[in-house]
Amino acid sequence: MKKACSLAIAAALLALPVNAEEAKVEYPSPPEIVAKAAASEWVEIAPSDLMVMELAPLGDKPRRVVIQLMPAPFSQGWVSNIRKLAAAKFWDGTSVNRVQDNYVVQWGDATEKKALPDGLAVVPEADYAAYSYECSASPSEAKTGRCRVYAAAGQRIELTKEADSYGQFPFLFDGWPLGVAYHLDENAVVPGWNEPKPVFFPSLAPVHCYGMVGVGRNLSPDTGTGAELYTVIGHAPRHLDRNIALVGRVIEGIEHLSSLPRGTGPLGFYEREEERVPILSVRTGNEVSGLPAYEYLSTESESFAKYADARANRRDPFFIKPAGGADICNIPVPVRRKAL
Amino acid sequence: MKKACSLAIAAALLALPVNAEEAKVEYPSPPEIVAKAAASEWVEIAPSDLMVMELAPLGDKPRRVVIQLMPAPFSQGWVSNIRKLAAAKFWDGTSVNRVQDNYVVQWGDATEKKALPDGLAVVPEADYAAYSYECSASPSEAKTGRCRVYAAAGQRIELTKEADSYGQFPFLFDGWPLGVAYHLDENAVVPGWNEPKPVFFPSLAPVHCYGMVGVGRNLSPDTGTGAELYTVIGHAPRHLDRNIALVGRVIEGIEHLSSLPRGTGPLGFYEREEERVPILSVRTGNEVSGLPAYEYLSTESESFAKYADARANRRDPFFIKPAGGADICNIPVPVRRKAL
Repeated sequence: MKKACSLAIAAALLALPVNAEEAKVEYPSPPEIVAKAAASEWVEIAPSDLMVMELAPLGDKPRRVVIQLMPAPFSQGWVSNIRKLAAAKFWDGTSVNRVQDNYVVQWGDATEKKALPDGLAVVPEADYAAYSYECSASPSEAKTGRCRVYAAAGQRIELTKEADSYGQFPFLFDGWPLGVAYHLDENAVVPGWNEPKPVFFPSLAPVHCYGMVGVGRNLSPDTGTGAELYTVIGHAPRHLDRNIALVGRVIEGIEHLSSLPRGTGPLGFYEREEERVPILSVRTGNEVSGLPAYEYLSTESESFAKYADARANRRDPFFIKPAGGADICNIPVPVRRKAL
Repeated sequence: MKKACSLAIAAALLALPVNAEEAKVEYPSPPEIVAKAAASEWVEIAPSDLMVMELAPLGDKPRRVVIQLMPAPFSQGWVSNIRKLAAAKFWDGTSVNRVQDNYVVQWGDATEKKALPDGLAVVPEADYAAYSYECSASPSEAKTGRCRVYAAAGQRIELTKEADSYGQFPFLFDGWPLGVAYHLDENAVVPGWNEPKPVFFPSLAPVHCYGMVGVGRNLSPDTGTGAELYTVIGHAPRHLDRNIALVGRVIEGIEHLSSLPRGTGPLGFYEREEERVPILSVRTGNEVSGLPAYEYLSTESESFAKYADARANRRDPFFIKPAGGADICNIPVPVRRKAL
């Protein structure tokens, strides 16, 4: 049933009084929630899972970018290559070559002539996602996200949210933004069945949020070695999910990349050699002396649940209309230097 | 019904062959679609609806930022204030004062002491959204987005998509990213009804995508005058939708803002006066001699529909897995200088 109704009535709905004092007591802001999280809710990142990139200083200001590498079961072929490239000091003397506004910053060997170290793996496209061992035989069940999937450490995830605009069921787990997607096999052969049936197979893959680091590549089925890397510096380019390998995220110093002058060539590549930003060195964290310890707020902690809820429903005094939700890339996982 | 199934079967789903040659013929990329759009599908922007901000040059490089103001029925109280502020040359000699990574760049009078011109309106919070005249009396009908709403020029929009993560039904219309939200009035009094009933009222509001320009304010119910403005330089901060007035978007030169050094003070404010970027002048487009004409691809055109579909389903040769969808801020409206 549809009715014509007056503008005045609708507008009046917004005029509810707000008691800012009370709101402040009841509803701390997301940073306030994070600041109050217990020490036990933070997870330290092993230095060997960090990559430290030193750009040429800007004047006398050092420019260090710290990247956390993705854990298993995601993208480990490329992550292993990246460890080998860092050990071989491959990136020393290379440069940041591409800065495309609202998209990515990309670095590597601009000459494309530098020899790669031996032993790099050729990783298949299948490894853009990790596959779970449990799936649904009912498309309707699978489509509503009730199919169970197993994540990194064998934990079972109950998907309760609706699919997002990208047809994925996104969630934050083990410190990372992940998405489940379903792939229909019309004629799946499953043990215990007498004949092939349609099956939706769930797969898990990392999501292209701000600051995530991925592996540059040429046309499919080339998946890249890991020698050419990029990070997201704009609105989440989710169309790249499952089309490129994600291998980590910038946890400190992204401003040294995101504030670089934009390239004026096609795709934001720098057109002149002198525009490129020299990379002095890239090392894994365990090889950098004096590196601070870093930790992230456990995505399975009580404080993270409160933080995520507060990101989705801002009720701190500035806000008048909580959204009632947030997309996965608008709930960045808090990462900080560990207090000594 | 749930079955255990082997990893090998699931992984094999990804091994479908891709014929890049054929794909290229069948599926042009989004920029290729835009390049082929007919001249009649582009809409020229009136110079009087542009604001031209000249920042102090960087070395000998001029830094011009061009902003398109929002049309009726959105935010017109603030837009009118902004026209008055530009006419009074209020921003000449002010500065960019805040650059917060993955969030906003903000400009205005850092001293907060400069006199505002006479005649600025005090705009109510209700004006963060525009209200339609037609609504649904059925919550279930409204919630599934089948309620009809009227947009800017009286056109009726049929909402067919599901609500996004922010509880809105987003769409692109009249050149802008907009979202419909529903507000429940438990006891609405509607002409023709004998007694109050629950009614979901739809309202339309602009969406905080990359490059959108909004009005800085203090705590609610202060809605800001328009003298203090910001633009989005990161992932869409959709929690600000309906909490702040959006008055336009940057259509050229956003790189002069997004690539500025990040502020090191709270919220990304510059801590030292010399860090601020001087604004030489802000004028409406009709007062700037030699300004190019700008045009946007009509969001109601056939080419835009193809472009939006291609953004949501990348099938050009680089891609192996079309997403099947995109969020509204990942379908930026193409804007360009009009060919002479």
